Amino acid sequence: MLTILIAESELELVPVELQNERSVRAHAKRRGKKASELILDSSLHHTAMTALTEKNRRGRPDMIHTTLLVLLESILNMDGGLRVIMHTRNDQSIEFNSTIRLPKNYNRFVGLMEQLFVSGKVPKDNIEGQEPLILLEHDRGLVDIINRLKADAGANSTGIRTVLLSDSGREVDPGQYFGEAAKSGGETLCIIGGFPEGDFKTSTDELLVDDIISIYPEPLKSWTVAAEIIVNYRSGNKTAPKQK
Amino acid sequence: MLTILIAESELELVPVELQNERSVRAHAKRRGKKASELILDSSLHHTAMTALTEKNRRGRPDMIHTTLLVLLESILNMDGGLRVIMHTRNDQSIEFNSTIRLPKNYNRFVGLMEQLFVSGKVPKDNIEGQEPLILLEHDRGLVDIINRLKADAGANSTGIRTVLLSDSGREVDPGQYFGEAAKSGGETLCIIGGFPEGDFKTSTDELLVDDIISIYPEPLKSWTVAAEIIVNYRSGNKTAPKQK
Repeated sequence: MLTILIAESELELVPVELQNERSVRAHAKRRGKKASELILDSSLHHTAMTALTEKNRRGRPDMIHTTLLVLLESILNMDGGLRVIMHTRNDQSIEFNSTIRLPKNYNRFVGLMEQLFVSGKVPKDNIEGQEPLILLEHDRGLVDIINRLKADAGANSTGIRTVLLSDSGREVDPGQYFGEAAKSGGETLCIIGGFPEGDFKTSTDELLVDDIISIYPEPLKSWTVAAEIIVNYRSGNKTAPKQK
Repeated sequence: MLTILIAESELELVPVELQNERSVRAHAKRRGKKASELILDSSLHHTAMTALTEKNRRGRPDMIHTTLLVLLESILNMDGGLRVIMHTRNDQSIEFNSTIRLPKNYNRFVGLMEQLFVSGKVPKDNIEGQEPLILLEHDRGLVDIINRLKADAGANSTGIRTVLLSDSGREVDPGQYFGEAAKSGGETLCIIGGFPEGDFKTSTDELLVDDIISIYPEPLKSWTVAAEIIVNYRSGNKTAPKQK
């Protein structure tokens, strides 16, 4: 089993300091929503974001959408071998049921995320006997989420190997690395960044991971990293018996 | 070198029979464009498309966007090992320069495609000494595009192995198959569908490909197929020398 944790994802509602900006209010009116119920989108709110801290990395539902489509529509996920969890800049955790079919259209995806941030789950009403397709929880820091995943795996007495993907990690070949991770048969947690530039803001020392790796000498998009992990992991798993 | 041809892609301008529909005219007005200059989008033009032939597969710039982002932001492309060409339902060919950075935001991508369909290239004005980043050509049927790629490779006296990815092909393991294609060292052309459902409309006999394969027993999204090909191809290539 492979778990992918998309960490420090730049997915958030329009922050309070922007809710009275003229362009944001106009957008809210067009959408028939309150400004506080809109997902921040740097493509739409660029002007309003001028004075915002860390404005160059915030408001990227577009990146998150592409990364989730790559993960959730993958063969590994269709085969039941993938768990996808997101951690956001405001320390929410968002877990996606592997059976979910996300909207392929970006604007519909943003609408769904707005519904999720307001109601905490998708679908917003409980259906008896059914797990939610998406569940959002507040006050879940990155260290907390990782520790919970370790504890879950520990309770199953299998343990989980934790790997952080970072530009500043030691260089490895992704085909070899994830192929071997798959062949080992144990559980693996890969933590990838959900932000467009720079490095993790959380100190990597704090995360207490087993390995910090880099799969390419230049920065990569989140979905490129995601595809390299899941495709190589599955191929390693599939070819293992044939090599014996 | 690997070439990916996205065939029968559902990317087109709003067809003439829809240009006078009320919802399409309203959308054109909002965008400040003529209805004939808009990209057909099933998410926006759903109601107007009711009477359109093949309405269930048409108007999918969302799928095309995700597939192109997976291909053009891949490590294989950054390393100069990938060529990406698209064939559309109206027999246009669209070639992407490997250095292009496509908009990550969907609405900006649609705007760029509208500019491309109107002016035939991106950027729309020639820059001396520079190849266009995107080039659209009309009257390029799928058979014609494949034959030209074969002729190009033949002129280099290397030849090119042509592989069609189809639900109805013989089942192969993508890790093994594309790994071996990479290790062979020759040129490979993979033809994948750019449509959301069903099979190729062109008879596969007409295409005269070397192989027709299926990498999974159930239908896959175009970007899932694209990721399986490029990641496995690169990993096969990278691990080849180490196995000698």
